[in-house]
Amino acid sequence: MDKLHKGWFTEFSPDDLEKMNSSGESQESSSKLLKSDGQEMGGAWPGQAFSLQVKKVLYHEKSKYQDVLVFESTTYGNVLVLDGIVQATERDEFSYQEMLAHLPLFAHPNPKRVLIIGGGDGGILREVLKHETVEKVTMCEIDDMVIDVAKKFLPGMSCGFSHEKLDLYCGDGFEFLKNHKNEFDVIITDSSDPKPRKSGECPWLDLKLISTVIRSARELFPVSKYAVGRESVWLHLPLIAHLVAFNRKIFPTVNYAQSIVSTYPSGSMGYLICAKSEVSVCDD
Amino acid sequence: MDKLHKGWFTEFSPDDLEKMNSSGESQESSSKLLKSDGQEMGGAWPGQAFSLQVKKVLYHEKSKYQDVLVFESTTYGNVLVLDGIVQATERDEFSYQEMLAHLPLFAHPNPKRVLIIGGGDGGILREVLKHETVEKVTMCEIDDMVIDVAKKFLPGMSCGFSHEKLDLYCGDGFEFLKNHKNEFDVIITDSSDPKPRKSGECPWLDLKLISTVIRSARELFPVSKYAVGRESVWLHLPLIAHLVAFNRKIFPTVNYAQSIVSTYPSGSMGYLICAKSEVSVCDD
Repeated sequence: MDKLHKGWFTEFSPDDLEKMNSSGESQESSSKLLKSDGQEMGGAWPGQAFSLQVKKVLYHEKSKYQDVLVFESTTYGNVLVLDGIVQATERDEFSYQEMLAHLPLFAHPNPKRVLIIGGGDGGILREVLKHETVEKVTMCEIDDMVIDVAKKFLPGMSCGFSHEKLDLYCGDGFEFLKNHKNEFDVIITDSSDPKPRKSGECPWLDLKLISTVIRSARELFPVSKYAVGRESVWLHLPLIAHLVAFNRKIFPTVNYAQSIVSTYPSGSMGYLICAKSEVSVCDD
Repeated sequence: MDKLHKGWFTEFSPDDLEKMNSSGESQESSSKLLKSDGQEMGGAWPGQAFSLQVKKVLYHEKSKYQDVLVFESTTYGNVLVLDGIVQATERDEFSYQEMLAHLPLFAHPNPKRVLIIGGGDGGILREVLKHETVEKVTMCEIDDMVIDVAKKFLPGMSCGFSHEKLDLYCGDGFEFLKNHKNEFDVIITDSSDPKPRKSGECPWLDLKLISTVIRSARELFPVSKYAVGRESVWLHLPLIAHLVAFNRKIFPTVNYAQSIVSTYPSGSMGYLICAKSEVSVCDD
């Protein structure tokens, strides 16, 4: 922990997390292991590691669902880390939030009701609220500790939580969707990285989430979309190809976009945008 | 050195290099310091660090000009490192080479004679030779150790060195240009990072190189270009703005492009493309 206070934060690998989770250590001990000290160098992705210099640790607790860390970095502002993976830095978060929010919203002819699954840091909410057509934003975030932390340490991202158009639910997105089918024009999934499963299996391939979202997309409007984030064309090409092929069996429109987010793995992030009708999503 | 053999390579910062160069240590000692062991975590850019896992060190010598390191990484193939900065990995080098070579060559109506300044790893040469209009490629690389190393450890990049269209000179690009003005349709600068100068001054702002290239661009053809690489819009925005403004005083066409190169700082690399006439360089 001394190293984290004075030194560097390095992302952990899903394999490391799995080892920690299955090692039978107490929660307290496991939590300590998650306090990356810049020496493990496991990296969140095999063979590579990204590190940020720590100026000051602002918050570090274990919620019911995950390890929540916020630190002030020397050059990227405040940084939110969940289960050892960088989620957002104040310096480059806009690149991710703008893409995930505006690609589906600008492609929809009249988005009025938007659902955000996850997104507890508030970044997607902030961008969605910039669209005047939007009448109601529903957010379903499972971990209220993330919302509390964002309100306290990431004010530029969490500025939308007091907005009158927001309906905020704390709970499981899957369960929420079961009771709220066909209510939304645009669904944006901005959940944190799922826990790793079997070794070698990509932890981002969450078909349960995808099929739930598909079933729940609104039928009454000509266009319904969902967008998922959190993978890089440099590291996850087989997964992306699989996701695109999977969705093309269901949606008339499936597009993949990417943007540079310098603190994400390989400096890039991908966005999958699907629609229930044939529309121009990513064209000029 | 044990750590480098068994562990991780982390980029050094220009400040670290300056300290090493000015510390008065012997060349042997300085060379050892350049053998990054993954613990310094200085990073080539303030507050952040990128590391690659080392499978095997293949070559590590100090040439007349720089520290030359080649290692086999666990997930990025063989990696060329000059003065502590990653220059190319077998896995992602194409993204850099294709942009720096093809943007100016496809924009020129009939590129016949091309000059490459630097480019000792052979990657730009490989791409330039793909253009059938090109009759002669002149390369001026100051450090023949880089060429030898590329031939041995980076065969996929160095495959063009035996091509009959190549004129290869080993020497200073500035000196070469003094005696070869107005001979080229396209000039591509692919030099390694200049040594850091005064602290705080961006080491990439090499106006000497820029003005030399400008003076030497061929007058007889309607389009002459030069392209420079090695900076990221995420880290060097003031420098990029300065370079674009500086060149717009001289060239009718100045365009800036970028691509994702996952092992470069912030995962991105920028390309400045200038032409002596008004042409479409980066449009569709």
